[in-house]
Amino acid sequence: MNRPPKKAIVLSSGGLDSTTALAIARSENYECYTLSFFYGQRHHHELTAAKKISAMMGAVKHYVVNVDLSQIGGSALTDDIDVPKNRNPREMTSGIPVTYVPARNTIFLSYALAWSEVLDAPDIFIGVNALDYSGYPDCRPAYIAAFQTMANLALKNTVEGKRTISIRTPLLHMTKAEIIRTGMALNIDYSITHSCYDPDNAGHACGRCDSCLLRKKGFAEAGVPDPTIYGKKPKP
Amino acid sequence: MNRPPKKAIVLSSGGLDSTTALAIARSENYECYTLSFFYGQRHHHELTAAKKISAMMGAVKHYVVNVDLSQIGGSALTDDIDVPKNRNPREMTSGIPVTYVPARNTIFLSYALAWSEVLDAPDIFIGVNALDYSGYPDCRPAYIAAFQTMANLALKNTVEGKRTISIRTPLLHMTKAEIIRTGMALNIDYSITHSCYDPDNAGHACGRCDSCLLRKKGFAEAGVPDPTIYGKKPKP
Repeated sequence: MNRPPKKAIVLSSGGLDSTTALAIARSENYECYTLSFFYGQRHHHELTAAKKISAMMGAVKHYVVNVDLSQIGGSALTDDIDVPKNRNPREMTSGIPVTYVPARNTIFLSYALAWSEVLDAPDIFIGVNALDYSGYPDCRPAYIAAFQTMANLALKNTVEGKRTISIRTPLLHMTKAEIIRTGMALNIDYSITHSCYDPDNAGHACGRCDSCLLRKKGFAEAGVPDPTIYGKKPKP
Repeated sequence: MNRPPKKAIVLSSGGLDSTTALAIARSENYECYTLSFFYGQRHHHELTAAKKISAMMGAVKHYVVNVDLSQIGGSALTDDIDVPKNRNPREMTSGIPVTYVPARNTIFLSYALAWSEVLDAPDIFIGVNALDYSGYPDCRPAYIAAFQTMANLALKNTVEGKRTISIRTPLLHMTKAEIIRTGMALNIDYSITHSCYDPDNAGHACGRCDSCLLRKKGFAEAGVPDPTIYGKKPKP
Protein backbone atom coordinates (compact mmCIF):
# COMPACT_ATOMS: atom_id res chain seq x y z
CA MET A 1 0.00 0.00 0.00
CA ASN A 2 1.36 3.40 -0.96
CA ARG A 3 -1.48 5.43 0.47
CA PRO A 4 -0.23 8.11 2.83
CA PRO A 5 -1.10 7.50 6.48
CA LYS A 6 -4.26 9.10 7.82
CA LYS A 7 -3.36 11.70 10.41
CA ALA A 8 -5.49 12.83 13.32
CA ILE A 9 -5.17 15.40 16.07
CA VAL A 10 -6.28 13.95 19.41
CA LEU A 11 -6.99 16.26 22.34
CA SER A 12 -5.38 14.54 25.29
CA SER A 13 -6.00 15.59 28.88
CA GLY A 14 -4.38 12.50 30.37
CA GLY A 15 -7.79 11.42 31.60
CA LEU A 16 -9.87 8.33 31.04
CA ASP A 17 -12.06 9.73 28.25
CA SER A 18 -9.41 11.33 26.07
CA THR A 19 -7.16 8.27 26.44
CA THR A 20 -9.99 6.08 25.21
CA ALA A 21 -10.54 8.47 22.28
CA LEU A 22 -6.82 8.14 21.47
CA ALA A 23 -7.04 4.34 21.56
CA ILE A 24 -10.04 4.44 19.23
CA ALA A 25 -8.17 6.71 16.79
CA ARG A 26 -5.19 4.34 16.88
CA SER A 27 -7.51 1.36 16.28
CA GLU A 28 -8.72 3.13 13.13
CA ASN A 29 -5.09 3.29 11.94
CA TYR A 30 -4.63 7.01 12.38
CA GLU A 31 -1.18 8.50 12.94
CA CYS A 32 -1.96 10.47 16.06
CA TYR A 33 -0.73 13.93 17.04
CA THR A 34 -1.70 14.57 20.63
CA LEU A 35 -2.44 18.03 21.94
CA SER A 36 -2.55 18.97 25.64
CA PHE A 37 -3.03 22.29 27.36
CA PHE A 38 -1.56 23.90 30.41
CA TYR A 39 -4.07 26.54 31.43
CA GLY A 40 -3.14 27.12 35.05
CA GLN A 41 -5.23 24.14 36.16
CA ARG A 42 -4.54 22.95 39.67
CA HIS A 43 -4.65 19.36 38.40
CA HIS A 44 -1.49 19.70 36.29
CA HIS A 45 -0.61 16.09 37.12
CA GLU A 46 -2.84 15.30 34.15
CA LEU A 47 -0.12 16.69 31.86
CA THR A 48 2.42 14.22 33.20
CA ALA A 49 -0.13 11.50 32.51
CA ALA A 50 -0.83 12.89 29.02
CA LYS A 51 2.88 12.82 28.17
CA LYS A 52 3.26 9.22 29.34
CA ILE A 53 0.10 8.11 27.52
CA SER A 54 1.19 9.74 24.24
CA ALA A 55 4.51 7.91 24.39
CA MET A 56 2.98 4.55 25.37
CA MET A 57 0.28 4.73 22.76
CA GLY A 58 2.58 5.64 19.88
CA ALA A 59 1.61 9.23 19.20
CA VAL A 60 3.86 10.74 16.52
CA LYS A 61 4.15 14.00 18.45
CA HIS A 62 2.80 15.38 21.71
CA TYR A 63 2.48 19.14 21.96
CA VAL A 64 1.60 20.98 25.17
CA VAL A 65 0.20 24.44 24.52
CA ASN A 66 0.53 27.08 27.20
CA VAL A 67 -2.83 28.83 27.46
CA ASP A 68 -2.91 31.74 29.89
CA LEU A 69 -6.54 31.28 30.90
CA SER A 70 -5.63 31.75 34.54
CA GLN A 71 -5.46 35.49 33.86
CA ILE A 72 -9.04 35.33 32.66
CA GLY A 73 -10.19 33.15 35.54
CA GLY A 74 -13.78 32.27 36.24
CA SER A 75 -13.36 28.62 37.28
CA ALA A 76 -12.65 26.46 40.31
CA LEU A 77 -10.10 24.63 38.16
CA THR A 78 -7.94 27.73 37.74
CA ASP A 79 -8.93 30.07 40.58
CA ASP A 80 -8.91 29.76 44.33
CA ILE A 81 -12.45 28.37 44.50
CA ASP A 82 -13.19 25.06 46.24
CA VAL A 83 -13.77 22.09 43.97
CA PRO A 84 -17.12 20.56 45.05
CA LYS A 85 -16.89 17.16 46.73
CA ASN A 86 -19.18 14.21 47.35
CA ARG A 87 -22.02 15.39 45.11
CA ASN A 88 -24.56 12.80 44.00
CA PRO A 89 -25.10 12.12 40.28
CA ARG A 90 -28.36 14.11 40.24
CA GLU A 91 -26.62 17.19 41.66
CA MET A 92 -23.87 16.82 39.06
CA THR A 93 -26.24 16.97 36.10
CA SER A 94 -28.65 19.59 37.45
CA GLY A 95 -26.60 22.63 36.43
CA ILE A 96 -23.25 23.88 35.27
CA PRO A 97 -20.74 23.43 38.12
CA VAL A 98 -18.03 25.82 39.32
CA THR A 99 -15.42 23.58 37.70
CA TYR A 100 -16.68 24.83 34.34
CA VAL A 101 -13.90 26.78 32.54
CA PRO A 102 -15.26 29.48 30.21
CA ALA A 103 -14.81 28.59 26.53
CA ARG A 104 -12.29 25.89 27.35
CA ASN A 105 -13.18 23.40 24.64
CA THR A 106 -13.59 26.24 22.13
CA ILE A 107 -10.05 27.43 22.82
CA PHE A 108 -8.67 23.87 22.78
CA LEU A 109 -10.43 22.96 19.53
CA SER A 110 -9.28 26.25 17.96
CA TYR A 111 -5.63 25.35 18.57
CA ALA A 112 -6.40 21.89 17.20
CA LEU A 113 -7.76 23.53 14.03
CA ALA A 114 -4.57 25.52 13.56
CA TRP A 115 -2.38 22.45 14.00
CA SER A 116 -4.71 20.35 11.88
CA GLU A 117 -4.29 22.71 8.97
CA VAL A 118 -0.50 22.82 9.19
CA LEU A 119 -0.23 19.02 9.53
CA ASP A 120 -2.97 18.37 6.96
CA ALA A 121 -4.82 16.26 9.54
CA PRO A 122 -8.51 17.09 9.11
CA ASP A 123 -9.82 14.63 11.71
CA ILE A 124 -9.83 15.94 15.28
CA PHE A 125 -10.70 13.56 18.11
CA ILE A 126 -12.09 14.88 21.38
CA GLY A 127 -13.29 12.68 24.23
CA VAL A 128 -16.42 14.65 25.13
CA ASN A 129 -19.34 12.77 26.51
CA ALA A 130 -22.96 13.88 26.82
CA LEU A 131 -24.18 11.19 29.23
CA ASP A 132 -21.94 10.68 32.26
CA TYR A 133 -20.59 14.20 32.19
CA SER A 134 -20.42 17.21 34.47
CA GLY A 135 -22.97 19.47 32.82
CA TYR A 136 -20.54 21.51 30.71
CA PRO A 137 -22.21 23.28 27.76
CA ASP A 138 -19.23 22.67 25.47
CA CYS A 139 -19.58 18.88 25.75
CA ARG A 140 -22.99 18.69 24.10
CA PRO A 141 -23.71 17.38 20.58
CA ALA A 142 -25.23 20.70 19.40
CA TYR A 143 -22.06 22.55 20.42
CA ILE A 144 -19.77 20.07 18.65
CA ALA A 145 -21.86 20.21 15.48
CA ALA A 146 -21.77 24.03 15.48
CA PHE A 147 -18.01 24.05 16.03
CA GLN A 148 -17.54 21.71 13.08
CA THR A 149 -19.69 23.91 10.84
CA MET A 150 -17.66 26.98 11.85
CA ALA A 151 -14.37 25.10 11.34
CA ASN A 152 -15.28 24.25 7.77
CA LEU A 153 -15.67 27.97 7.04
CA ALA A 154 -12.52 29.05 8.88
CA LEU A 155 -9.54 27.43 7.19
CA LYS A 156 -7.70 27.74 3.90
CA ASN A 157 -7.89 23.99 3.25
CA THR A 158 -11.62 23.78 3.91
CA VAL A 159 -12.58 26.94 2.04
CA GLU A 160 -10.55 25.88 -0.99
CA GLY A 161 -12.43 22.57 -0.93
CA LYS A 162 -9.39 20.37 -0.28
CA ARG A 163 -10.37 19.07 3.16
CA THR A 164 -13.36 18.69 5.43
CA ILE A 165 -12.76 19.07 9.14
CA SER A 166 -14.40 16.32 11.12
CA ILE A 167 -14.70 16.74 14.89
CA ARG A 168 -14.72 13.09 15.94
CA THR A 169 -16.48 12.36 19.23
CA PRO A 170 -16.54 8.56 19.54
CA LEU A 171 -17.56 8.71 23.24
CA LEU A 172 -20.37 11.23 22.82
CA HIS A 173 -23.24 8.85 23.52
CA MET A 174 -21.46 6.24 25.67
CA THR A 175 -21.91 5.77 29.40
CA LYS A 176 -18.73 5.86 31.47
CA ALA A 177 -19.02 2.06 31.82
CA GLU A 178 -19.20 1.66 28.03
CA ILE A 179 -16.18 3.91 27.62
CA ILE A 180 -14.19 1.78 30.07
CA ARG A 181 -15.25 -1.48 28.42
CA THR A 182 -14.26 -0.07 25.01
CA GLY A 183 -10.88 0.99 26.36
CA MET A 184 -10.25 -2.35 28.06
CA ALA A 185 -10.95 -4.12 24.76
CA LEU A 186 -8.30 -1.83 23.23
CA ASN A 187 -5.82 -2.76 25.99
CA ILE A 188 -5.68 0.60 27.73
CA ASP A 189 -3.92 0.53 31.07
CA TYR A 190 -6.20 2.96 32.91
CA SER A 191 -3.86 3.09 35.90
CA ILE A 192 -1.77 5.66 34.02
CA THR A 193 -4.72 7.96 33.36
CA HIS A 194 -5.56 10.87 35.66
CA SER A 195 -9.09 12.22 36.12
CA CYS A 196 -9.12 14.01 39.49
CA TYR A 197 -9.80 17.76 39.63
CA ASP A 198 -8.14 18.16 43.00
CA PRO A 199 -5.26 15.69 43.51
CA ASP A 200 -2.85 15.82 46.45
CA ASN A 201 0.76 16.93 45.99
CA ALA A 202 1.83 13.42 45.01
CA GLY A 203 -0.79 13.45 42.24
CA HIS A 204 -3.09 10.96 43.93
CA ALA A 205 -6.80 11.32 43.19
CA CYS A 206 -9.10 12.81 45.85
CA GLY A 207 -11.86 10.27 45.22
CA ARG A 208 -14.57 12.82 45.99
CA CYS A 209 -14.73 15.42 43.19
CA ASP A 210 -17.25 15.01 40.35
CA SER A 211 -14.59 13.61 38.05
CA CYS A 212 -13.43 10.97 40.59
CA LEU A 213 -17.02 10.01 41.42
CA LEU A 214 -17.96 9.55 37.76
CA ARG A 215 -14.81 7.51 37.21
CA LYS A 216 -15.47 5.25 40.23
CA LYS A 217 -19.07 4.73 39.17
CA GLY A 218 -17.89 3.84 35.66
CA PHE A 219 -15.50 1.14 36.85
CA ALA A 220 -18.17 -0.23 39.20
CA GLU A 221 -20.79 -0.35 36.44
CA ALA A 222 -18.35 -1.87 33.96
CA GLY A 223 -17.54 -4.57 36.51
CA VAL A 224 -13.85 -3.80 36.20
CA PRO A 225 -11.48 -3.25 39.16
CA ASP A 226 -10.68 0.47 39.55
CA PRO A 227 -6.86 0.79 39.20
CA THR A 228 -6.84 4.40 40.51
CA ILE A 229 -4.69 5.19 43.54
CA TYR A 230 -6.75 7.43 45.80
CA GLY A 231 -4.74 9.61 48.18
CA LYS A 232 -5.64 11.25 51.43
CA LYS A 233 -5.66 15.01 51.07
CA PRO A 234 -4.66 16.74 54.30
CA LYS A 235 -7.14 19.30 55.52
CA PRO A 236 -5.85 22.85 55.15
CA MET B 1 -29.44 56.80 34.99
CA ASN B 2 -28.69 53.77 37.13
CA ARG B 3 -28.36 51.29 34.31
CA PRO B 4 -25.06 49.42 34.50
CA PRO B 5 -22.64 50.30 31.72
CA LYS B 6 -22.66 48.15 28.60
CA LYS B 7 -19.37 46.29 28.31
CA ALA B 8 -17.72 45.08 25.13
CA ILE B 9 -14.62 43.13 24.28
CA VAL B 10 -12.78 44.70 21.34
CA LEU B 11 -10.10 42.74 19.51
CA SER B 12 -7.31 45.24 18.98
CA SER B 13 -4.38 44.59 16.69
CA GLY B 14 -3.15 48.17 16.78
CA GLY B 15 -4.13 48.46 13.12
CA LEU B 16 -6.42 50.81 11.25
CA ASP B 17 -9.44 48.50 11.16
CA SER B 18 -9.52 47.35 14.78
CA THR B 19 -8.89 50.91 15.98
CA THR B 20 -11.90 52.06 13.99
CA ALA B 21 -13.98 49.22 15.47
CA LEU B 22 -12.89 50.39 18.94
CA ALA B 23 -13.91 53.98 18.15
CA ILE B 24 -17.31 52.74 16.95
CA ALA B 25 -17.80 50.72 20.16
CA ARG B 26 -16.88 53.79 22.22
CA SER B 27 -19.31 55.93 20.19
CA GLU B 28 -22.05 53.45 21.16
CA ASN B 29 -21.20 54.08 24.84
CA TYR B 30 -19.61 50.72 25.53
CA GLU B 31 -17.06 50.30 28.28
CA CYS B 32 -14.34 48.66 26.21
CA TYR B 33 -12.00 45.83 27.21
CA THR B 34 -9.34 45.49 24.55
CA LEU B 35 -7.70 42.20 23.73
CA SER B 36 -4.46 41.80 21.77
CA PHE B 37 -2.39 38.77 20.95
CA PHE B 38 1.29 38.07 20.74
CA TYR B 39 1.58 35.03 18.50
CA GLY B 40 5.19 35.25 17.38
CA GLN B 41 4.28 37.68 14.63
CA ARG B 42 7.23 39.52 13.12
CA HIS B 43 5.18 42.73 13.18
CA HIS B 44 5.10 42.95 16.98
CA HIS B 45 5.25 46.74 16.72
CA GLU B 46 1.48 46.47 16.38
CA LEU B 47 1.30 45.52 20.09
CA THR B 48 3.02 48.75 21.09
CA ALA B 49 0.47 50.57 18.96
CA ALA B 50 -2.41 48.57 20.49
CA LYS B 51 -1.29 49.49 23.99
CA LYS B 52 -1.07 53.18 23.16
CA ILE B 53 -4.43 53.13 21.38
CA SER B 54 -6.18 51.39 24.30
CA ALA B 55 -4.90 54.05 26.69
CA MET B 56 -5.71 56.98 24.40
CA MET B 57 -9.18 55.71 23.61
CA GLY B 58 -10.18 55.03 27.20
CA ALA B 59 -10.29 51.24 27.29
CA VAL B 60 -11.00 50.00 30.82
CA LYS B 61 -8.40 47.27 30.49
CA HIS B 62 -5.99 46.07 27.82
CA TYR B 63 -4.95 42.44 27.95
CA VAL B 64 -2.25 40.92 25.75
CA VAL B 65 -2.58 37.15 25.46
CA ASN B 66 0.50 35.12 24.67
CA VAL B 67 -0.47 32.60 22.01
CA ASP B 68 2.25 30.17 21.02
CA LEU B 69 1.16 29.79 17.41
CA SER B 70 4.75 30.10 16.25
CA GLN B 71 5.27 26.48 17.34
CA ILE B 72 2.45 25.51 15.01
CA GLY B 73 3.69 27.69 12.16
CA GLY B 74 2.26 27.70 8.68
CA SER B 75 2.39 31.42 7.94
CA ALA B 76 4.66 34.13 6.55
CA LEU B 77 3.66 36.24 9.57
CA THR B 78 5.20 33.79 12.04
CA ASP B 79 7.68 31.70 10.02
CA ASP B 80 10.71 32.54 7.96
CA ILE B 81 8.73 32.98 4.74
CA ASP B 82 8.93 36.19 2.69
CA VAL B 83 5.97 38.55 3.00
CA PRO B 84 4.83 39.29 -0.57
CA LYS B 85 5.42 42.81 -1.79
CA ASN B 86 4.00 45.14 -4.45
CA ARG B 87 1.06 42.93 -5.42
CA ASN B 88 -1.79 44.53 -7.31
CA PRO B 89 -5.32 44.50 -5.85
CA ARG B 90 -6.45 41.72 -8.20
CA GLU B 91 -3.59 39.47 -7.08
CA MET B 92 -4.49 40.17 -3.45
CA THR B 93 -8.05 38.96 -3.78
CA SER B 94 -7.45 36.03 -6.13
CA GLY B 95 -6.47 33.53 -3.43
CA ILE B 96 -5.43 33.07 0.15
CA PRO B 97 -1.97 34.60 0.62
CA VAL B 98 1.00 33.20 2.54
CA THR B 99 0.37 35.78 5.27
CA TYR B 100 -2.72 33.77 6.25
CA VAL B 101 -2.30 32.38 9.79
CA PRO B 102 -4.20 29.10 10.32
CA ALA B 103 -7.25 29.53 12.57
CA ARG B 104 -6.02 32.90 13.81
CA ASN B 105 -9.37 34.64 14.17
CA THR B 106 -10.91 31.46 15.62
CA ILE B 107 -8.27 31.37 18.35
CA PHE B 108 -8.55 35.12 18.98
CA LEU B 109 -12.36 35.04 19.17
CA SER B 110 -12.22 31.99 21.45
CA TYR B 111 -10.14 33.90 24.00
CA ALA B 112 -12.58 36.79 23.61
CA LEU B 113 -15.44 34.40 24.44
CA ALA B 114 -13.73 33.27 27.63
CA TRP B 115 -13.08 36.85 28.76
CA SER B 116 -16.55 37.92 27.66
CA GLU B 117 -18.12 35.34 29.93
CA VAL B 118 -16.02 36.29 32.96
CA LEU B 119 -16.61 40.03 32.45
CA ASP B 120 -20.25 39.54 31.47
CA ALA B 121 -19.61 41.43 28.24
CA PRO B 122 -21.59 39.63 25.55
CA ASP B 123 -20.73 42.00 22.69
CA ILE B 124 -17.44 41.27 20.94
CA PHE B 125 -16.17 43.73 18.33
CA ILE B 126 -13.79 42.57 15.61
CA GLY B 127 -12.60 44.75 12.75
CA VAL B 128 -12.90 42.19 9.97
CA ASN B 129 -13.70 43.41 6.52
CA ALA B 130 -14.94 41.45 3.54
CA LEU B 131 -14.29 44.03 0.82
CA ASP B 132 -10.80 45.54 0.93
CA TYR B 133 -9.25 42.55 2.61
CA SER B 134 -6.48 40.08 1.97
CA GLY B 135 -8.52 37.00 1.07
CA TYR B 136 -8.50 35.39 4.52
CA PRO B 137 -11.30 32.83 5.01
CA ASP B 138 -11.89 33.86 8.62
CA CYS B 139 -12.83 37.43 7.64
CA ARG B 140 -15.94 36.44 5.67
CA PRO B 141 -19.56 37.00 6.79
CA ALA B 142 -20.39 33.26 6.67
CA TYR B 143 -17.50 32.48 9.01
CA ILE B 144 -18.47 35.21 11.50
CA ALA B 145 -22.11 34.04 11.50
CA ALA B 146 -21.05 30.44 12.15
CA PHE B 147 -18.73 31.50 14.95
CA GLN B 148 -21.56 33.42 16.61
CA THR B 149 -23.90 30.40 16.36
CA MET B 150 -21.24 28.19 17.94
CA ALA B 151 -20.53 30.76 20.66
CA ASN B 152 -24.16 30.81 21.71
CA LEU B 153 -23.97 27.05 22.32
CA ALA B 154 -20.60 27.13 24.10
CA LEU B 155 -20.95 29.21 27.24
CA LYS B 156 -22.68 28.91 30.59
CA ASN B 157 -24.32 32.35 30.23
CA THR B 158 -25.68 31.66 26.78
CA VAL B 159 -26.86 28.11 27.44
CA GLU B 160 -28.61 29.21 30.61
CA GLY B 161 -30.39 31.87 28.53
CA LYS B 162 -28.93 34.86 30.37
CA ARG B 163 -26.92 36.36 27.52
CA THR B 164 -26.63 36.27 23.76
CA ILE B 165 -23.16 36.61 22.30
CA SER B 166 -23.04 39.07 19.46
CA ILE B 167 -19.97 39.16 17.24
CA ARG B 168 -20.07 42.79 16.13
CA THR B 169 -18.43 43.49 12.77
CA PRO B 170 -19.19 47.14 12.00
CA LEU B 171 -16.59 47.27 9.17
CA LEU B 172 -17.66 44.07 7.44
CA HIS B 173 -19.14 45.68 4.33
CA MET B 174 -17.17 48.94 4.27
CA THR B 175 -14.43 49.83 1.81
CA LYS B 176 -11.11 50.89 3.33
CA ALA B 177 -11.96 54.47 2.35
CA GLU B 178 -15.31 54.27 4.19
CA ILE B 179 -13.54 52.85 7.25
CA ILE B 180 -11.09 55.76 7.24
CA ARG B 181 -13.85 58.35 6.80
CA THR B 182 -15.81 56.77 9.66
CA GLY B 183 -12.74 56.83 11.89
CA MET B 184 -11.89 60.44 10.98
CA ALA B 185 -15.44 61.45 11.94
CA LEU B 186 -14.79 59.76 15.31
CA ASN B 187 -11.54 61.72 15.71
CA ILE B 188 -9.13 58.80 15.38
CA ASP B 189 -5.50 59.82 15.00
CA TYR B 190 -4.50 57.16 12.48
CA SER B 191 -0.82 58.10 12.81
CA ILE B 192 -0.65 55.92 15.94
CA THR B 193 -2.06 52.84 14.19
CA HIS B 194 0.20 50.20 12.67
CA SER B 195 -0.80 48.04 9.71
CA CYS B 196 2.45 46.82 8.12
CA TYR B 197 3.21 43.09 8.01
CA ASP B 198 6.93 43.67 7.61
CA PRO B 199 8.13 46.83 9.36
CA ASP B 200 11.77 47.78 9.78
CA ASN B 201 13.50 47.59 13.16
CA ALA B 202 12.30 51.07 14.08
CA GLY B 203 8.72 49.96 13.43
CA HIS B 204 8.30 51.97 10.24
CA ALA B 205 5.96 50.53 7.63
CA CYS B 206 7.40 48.91 4.50
CA GLY B 207 4.83 50.51 2.19
CA ARG B 208 4.82 47.47 -0.10
CA CYS B 209 3.09 44.54 1.69
CA ASP B 210 -0.61 43.85 1.06
CA SER B 211 -1.57 45.55 4.30
CA CYS B 212 0.40 48.74 3.51
CA LEU B 213 -0.92 48.84 -0.06
CA LEU B 214 -4.55 48.49 1.09
CA ARG B 215 -3.97 51.19 3.68
CA LYS B 216 -2.39 53.60 1.18
CA LYS B 217 -5.21 52.98 -1.29
CA GLY B 218 -7.75 53.62 1.47
CA PHE B 219 -6.31 57.01 2.38
CA ALA B 220 -6.05 57.96 -1.28
CA GLU B 221 -9.65 56.98 -2.00
CA ALA B 222 -10.90 58.70 1.16
CA GLY B 223 -9.11 61.87 0.04
CA VAL B 224 -7.32 62.07 3.37
CA PRO B 225 -3.56 62.58 3.81
CA ASP B 226 -1.86 59.32 4.81
CA PRO B 227 -0.17 59.96 8.20
CA THR B 228 1.88 56.74 8.05
CA ILE B 229 5.66 57.00 8.29
CA TYR B 230 7.09 54.66 5.68
CA GLY B 231 10.62 53.45 6.39
CA LYS B 232 13.31 52.11 4.13
CA LYS B 233 14.00 48.48 4.88
CA PRO B 234 17.64 47.58 4.28
CA LYS B 235 18.15 44.69 1.92
CA PRO B 236 19.46 41.57 3.69
